[in-house]
Amino acid sequence: MSKTGVWIIGARGGVATTALVGALALREGLTSETGLITSTALFEGVPLTAVGDLVFGGHDIRSTPLPDCAREIAAATGTFPPALLDRLEAPLRAIDGNVRPGVLFRSGDAIDSIADEEAVPRATEPAATIERIAADLREFRAANGLERLVVVNLASTEPRPPAHPAHEDASALDSALRSDDPEPFIASSLYALAAAEVGAAFLNFTPSPGALLPSIAARLRAAGVPFAGSDGKTGETLVKSALAPMFRYRNLKVLSWQGYNMLGDRDGQVLAHEENRAAKVESKDNLLHESLGYPLHSKVSIDYVPSLDDWKTAWDFIHFEGFLGVRMSLQFTWQGCDSVLAAPLVLDLVRLLDLALRRGEAGACDHLALFFKSPHGQREHDLHRQFQALAEYTERLRTGDSRH
Amino acid sequence: MSKTGVWIIGARGGVATTALVGALALREGLTSETGLITSTALFEGVPLTAVGDLVFGGHDIRSTPLPDCAREIAAATGTFPPALLDRLEAPLRAIDGNVRPGVLFRSGDAIDSIADEEAVPRATEPAATIERIAADLREFRAANGLERLVVVNLASTEPRPPAHPAHEDASALDSALRSDDPEPFIASSLYALAAAEVGAAFLNFTPSPGALLPSIAARLRAAGVPFAGSDGKTGETLVKSALAPMFRYRNLKVLSWQGYNMLGDRDGQVLAHEENRAAKVESKDNLLHESLGYPLHSKVSIDYVPSLDDWKTAWDFIHFEGFLGVRMSLQFTWQGCDSVLAAPLVLDLVRLLDLALRRGEAGACDHLALFFKSPHGQREHDLHRQFQALAEYTERLRTGDSRH
Amino acid sequence: MSKTGVWIIGARGGVATTALVGALALREGLTSETGLITSTALFEGVPLTAVGDLVFGGHDIRSTPLPDCAREIAAATGTFPPALLDRLEAPLRAIDGNVRPGVLFRSGDAIDSIADEEAVPRATEPAATIERIAADLREFRAANGLERLVVVNLASTEPRPPAHPAHEDASALDSALRSDDPEPFIASSLYALAAAEVGAAFLNFTPSPGALLPSIAARLRAAGVPFAGSDGKTGETLVKSALAPMFRYRNLKVLSWQGYNMLGDRDGQVLAHEENRAAKVESKDNLLHESLGYPLHSKVSIDYVPSLDDWKTAWDFIHFEGFLGVRMSLQFTWQGCDSVLAAPLVLDLVRLLDLALRRGEAGACDHLALFFKSPHGQREHDLHRQFQALAEYTERLRTGDSRH
Amino acid sequence: MSKTGVWIIGARGGVATTALVGALALREGLTSETGLITSTALFEGVPLTAVGDLVFGGHDIRSTPLPDCAREIAAATGTFPPALLDRLEAPLRAIDGNVRPGVLFRSGDAIDSIADEEAVPRATEPAATIERIAADLREFRAANGLERLVVVNLASTEPRPPAHPAHEDASALDSALRSDDPEPFIASSLYALAAAEVGAAFLNFTPSPGALLPSIAARLRAAGVPFAGSDGKTGETLVKSALAPMFRYRNLKVLSWQGYNMLGDRDGQVLAHEENRAAKVESKDNLLHESLGYPLHSKVSIDYVPSLDDWKTAWDFIHFEGFLGVRMSLQFTWQGCDSVLAAPLVLDLVRLLDLALRRGEAGACDHLALFFKSPHGQREHDLHRQFQALAEYTERLRTGDSRH
Repeated sequence: MSKTGVWIIGARGGVATTALVGALALREGLTSETGLITSTALFEGVPLTAVGDLVFGGHDIRSTPLPDCAREIAAATGTFPPALLDRLEAPLRAIDGNVRPGVLFRSGDAIDSIADEEAVPRATEPAATIERIAADLREFRAANGLERLVVVNLASTEPRPPAHPAHEDASALDSALRSDDPEPFIASSLYALAAAEVGAAFLNFTPSPGALLPSIAARLRAAGVPFAGSDGKTGETLVKSALAPMFRYRNLKVLSWQGYNMLGDRDGQVLAHEENRAAKVESKDNLLHESLGYPLHSKVSIDYVPSLDDWKTAWDFIHFEGFLGVRMSLQFTWQGCDSVLAAPLVLDLVRLLDLALRRGEAGACDHLALFFKSPHGQREHDLHRQFQALAEYTERLRTGDSRH
Repeated sequence: MSKTGVWIIGARGGVATTALVGALALREGLTSETGLITSTALFEGVPLTAVGDLVFGGHDIRSTPLPDCAREIAAATGTFPPALLDRLEAPLRAIDGNVRPGVLFRSGDAIDSIADEEAVPRATEPAATIERIAADLREFRAANGLERLVVVNLASTEPRPPAHPAHEDASALDSALRSDDPEPFIASSLYALAAAEVGAAFLNFTPSPGALLPSIAARLRAAGVPFAGSDGKTGETLVKSALAPMFRYRNLKVLSWQGYNMLGDRDGQVLAHEENRAAKVESKDNLLHESLGYPLHSKVSIDYVPSLDDWKTAWDFIHFEGFLGVRMSLQFTWQGCDSVLAAPLVLDLVRLLDLALRRGEAGACDHLALFFKSPHGQREHDLHRQFQALAEYTERLRTGDSRH
Repeated sequence: MSKTGVWIIGARGGVATTALVGALALREGLTSETGLITSTALFEGVPLTAVGDLVFGGHDIRSTPLPDCAREIAAATGTFPPALLDRLEAPLRAIDGNVRPGVLFRSGDAIDSIADEEAVPRATEPAATIERIAADLREFRAANGLERLVVVNLASTEPRPPAHPAHEDASALDSALRSDDPEPFIASSLYALAAAEVGAAFLNFTPSPGALLPSIAARLRAAGVPFAGSDGKTGETLVKSALAPMFRYRNLKVLSWQGYNMLGDRDGQVLAHEENRAAKVESKDNLLHESLGYPLHSKVSIDYVPSLDDWKTAWDFIHFEGFLGVRMSLQFTWQGCDSVLAAPLVLDLVRLLDLALRRGEAGACDHLALFFKSPHGQREHDLHRQFQALAEYTERLRTGDSRH
Repeated sequence: MSKTGVWIIGARGGVATTALVGALALREGLTSETGLITSTALFEGVPLTAVGDLVFGGHDIRSTPLPDCAREIAAATGTFPPALLDRLEAPLRAIDGNVRPGVLFRSGDAIDSIADEEAVPRATEPAATIERIAADLREFRAANGLERLVVVNLASTEPRPPAHPAHEDASALDSALRSDDPEPFIASSLYALAAAEVGAAFLNFTPSPGALLPSIAARLRAAGVPFAGSDGKTGETLVKSALAPMFRYRNLKVLSWQGYNMLGDRDGQVLAHEENRAAKVESKDNLLHESLGYPLHSKVSIDYVPSLDDWKTAWDFIHFEGFLGVRMSLQFTWQGCDSVLAAPLVLDLVRLLDLALRRGEAGACDHLALFFKSPHGQREHDLHRQFQALAEYTERLRTGDSRH
């Protein structure tokens, strides 16, 4: 049977490590499919590649081997039973053998500071860097006899690059690449362009603003590959997008929606930098205005609280007005392990992009909005309509309807 | 233009008083339509009777005049500005003139204890009592030149009547009525039967288990009138039904869902009685199992906390399992004024039942599930699918589709 | 009997208006003493001036008359029953007759923006301004036959003035005043210096950093008057100072303490300005480190949420470590009306400063630490030890012990 | 040096296992003293036995060996790192060798149901049972060369025994024992009487109402041994006793205090039985009334939520009235691992009872109120005064003051 490879940018990070431990545990029958959307009844009859059949590799800017990354996570968050890691030591090490040094390309101080700088020199020439990435992808494909490839961006959120014509315009993009002008690019842009070059599907699971710029999205589409993004909807924003429609249905007017997020770990550390946080906060905040259909007072803050490590804790306060102008409130506290919430979504999206690749679907996957805080090219943030869209897609697949 | 009358059982209670103050305030342009679902874009082009054109009357077992009820509420909950009540004194008093003594019929100790027993003797003969109620309804219709009538049950939750063949079977019901056997009936049964007799639509906004027993629902259907119920979904359960689908979408397994409700006021006082609370708790709890599709540990408690008065405060704790068996949690605190949340739903439902009556829709209104904790005859508790059903109904109305 | 006057800086603000409405309501027997510490058993046998005997006047930079201020608050927060305001209209108006235009003196943009600039010109000459304030105070004293005067700063929090030798050193202070150098001063400094000049006790109920600078505190002490401050401990910080000792007693190690505060109203509006907020946040945050005795990760944020008006809502998350290194958490949500919490403390402090003035106590009132977020000159933040200190003071008064 | 033995009733339960793992980890230098009150500066200069020098044994009604109990806890709550248990396997097994079959004596259905009935027959003769327990204690003392013995009751909460004259009166107690009348006794009574017989100090860390009945407390006092109880104050009640004084200090009137507790594990399972829960709820609730000094609406509920296991989660809602009758609220959520909170308190109390034994202090240890929900013979529930009392005790020890 034809094989699918998954190439993860940030392969040794928390989400990636959790996804890999989970995928291996599933392959070995050591865990359940809880958390995997693609394992629910919704996908009955849909020919998805089994998680256990996926082949993994990737880039990272850190050198710690995957089994050690997994043990660090187990110690910090308690999410992996140590016995499980003992069982998975060998296959994790095997995947680690497929990890190549990543790219530092105008990634900002926060990201530079966590890189293993000896192994990962800072690059400045975009075209050559894309070539180097593409070479790694081709080698991975050849070495493993892979028919299809899905490139997944799980790297830390980068600062937004300053506006540039090459972000919008195809010929400006070409010309910047030809002249090796680093100005319009950040690392995530180069990874996406490399994916287009080798014909891989592309998943931007982070809010990194460089990956799916209009001109890059157009390039992926032109390459005939599907892509999806941005920013996996895992916790507080997920709850937001489930609750906001309730207020709309009931004509209850939301006056203020304040969301306070706290997290530790490497992700929190990077987001403690204002320039990195900006993209994330924007991604978390704008859904409210669009879901509710009117302007309201809102705020999203993200604080770095090291003791929480990956246990994201968020408190939201929603102040709303009902009949006769009476003000009432709803508040919620979310306590979830971010990587554990994100990892199965990554596996789901890989399976769905692989399917889209097989089916020849090119461009943005509108049916995957459910998975993202900022679904590419869409303004639909209502979780329920997003679910409906996915359900309609799977229904079409089952009934052989050719539209997608 | 043809007029619609609204006859409220429990016309001097908290929800009724709030609905009446609100309806008058809307008529006078003194408040906004916030909280009214029928005033949203969803109902554009749907020919609903204006709230200001409704004519109100009702039954109650207490004698306090409506303006005094309203002032009591204003003092206790702060929900009506005193200036508003000054403005509405006269029209409230006029409605109060349409209120007749209600029925105490096997209503239980809790309800008996709040009745003004001089004005409201305890009845024991069902047929005669139905006749008395029907006579009040006919008089109201005649005196006000009403073409249509909607009977609304807002009385306190009654204890469940012991099982009886007349609850299920039409001929057993006939025979019990003919022999004037009180056994199968409680007050709410008699109100619903009177509605059937005079051809009024019927709304069971409470969880009272006597109103929409199968044989009574059949009688309403046979009378050609629409009905809807039971138990308005106003607060904690509303949030539950918005959130439960989120866990389902994401294949996150809910292990435990504990809901702790507190409220004061007369409603809380009645629900402090175990026999009255039973029906309510059942109504609040069963949706989870049906929404999620698997058994889980759950609990709903309702405590009487006098200092809260009508400010229902509820805390829910949701413990769930994600990928790799990791346990996480979501908790929320709801702080809402129950009457203020319920009142606009009552007005919405009156308008929608009036519409159904005009359109000749008989029997249970399936499209109104959105409004209820225990939608009659349905197992659909997902708020979003319920909203979808209502949206499809209004769409059919707009496009002239004859199905309903 | 000898009379005591109370001169309030910010007499038309939320806290002042609430204190005045409360004081009048107490005088008229229209409310209870709930919230007044000086009315508890602790003060039995302590000869305090009755709240009803206090005579009120003050400065303000806004011109709205007090009865209108009170009605605005009633409409926004629901804290005064309108009937009460009808009853107190005349005495509130009478107090308003004692309010004089306040001082804008390097008060910052936020405060300037809420001033009624026609009535309140910006001053730049410190000595003359002090003289103008002192003249107002003397006139108030003479017109009302007052024997003692307590000046109370309830004005909005000012930005911190840049460091200056006159803040620390008495002769530098003298020299700045002689040369009319505005540099070292902000409005609150001038009010405190005027109090010293006329022999009034001084209460800095706000965190304004200009009022009790070392050289000004020394000046008050030298004038033989007692003073107290800074920053009334009303809500989230009160809870903090009650809870922090619990962790210390039990040797539970607090890892992180995050506090998120939200409020609307004029106070929130001023604190939305970074320069004004700085003093407040510092005042709210430093107690933890001192209470617990070790450094920890902590944060205090204050957000302006207009819809909350004066209903301060705060969420604190406390992450702590127990035996065997296990991490646990406590979170709390505080929902209190700031002015209603602050007003009785102001009346308490006025009575206690009046008593201290009568007893000839000069300088900082160490026994009043209980009332403040940043008790002047002290590092004791443990609420329980602070209460103990106050109890010991009243005990000494009762037993005639001459120490204070 | 003279050795102290600790005999734990319920030695294989969650709290005991955690205390034993912790004590061994401390002995081996594998954990810190966080959570141990006796390791704080308060006890500097107080000659306490080192935790590492204590010798452990006990009774249990279950047969699972201690290392397996510890592994079960590690799997369920994540509180012990598996590597730690590997290190402690041998010493845990050694302690397990000192555990003897416990007593089922009118312990109620809930407790019977968790017993290993083959190993632990139900006893009905009190005198003989006391003798059997005393023989186990003497053997433990002899075998280990122990000079002093502290008996610690950590068994599940029993139902309250029906009132009996022998509970109050010494001669009625004697006569019941002489005639071998089982009526007045439950298992915990017999353990306490056995402790008195062998001259051991006695700690009732549970709310079990049979252990410190007046006549039994008198017997312990007469035997010249110190005792302490009842019901370790570990979580929600700890927070309550820290917060209630705050409302008293500030003259804020608490209207309602609702406390909802959830926990799983064996403790929760036993407390799911109404008769067992009664003693616990009473112990958790009565402190409020006594701390605040006035009656208030309050409730404590405890629900069994299996998925939480030992992670006790509690939500408290406090509704209070301030100045001008305004109602405000404070709510908190406590998430703590009960055994991890209780275990260090057990070790603290053992050290303190051992000290009291050495110092010849007989009877109730009033200075230990800080540790208990229902401090024996006291009405002082204010955490801060309780801490003060303990601090005064240690100060007396340091200064050689002979009072205790």
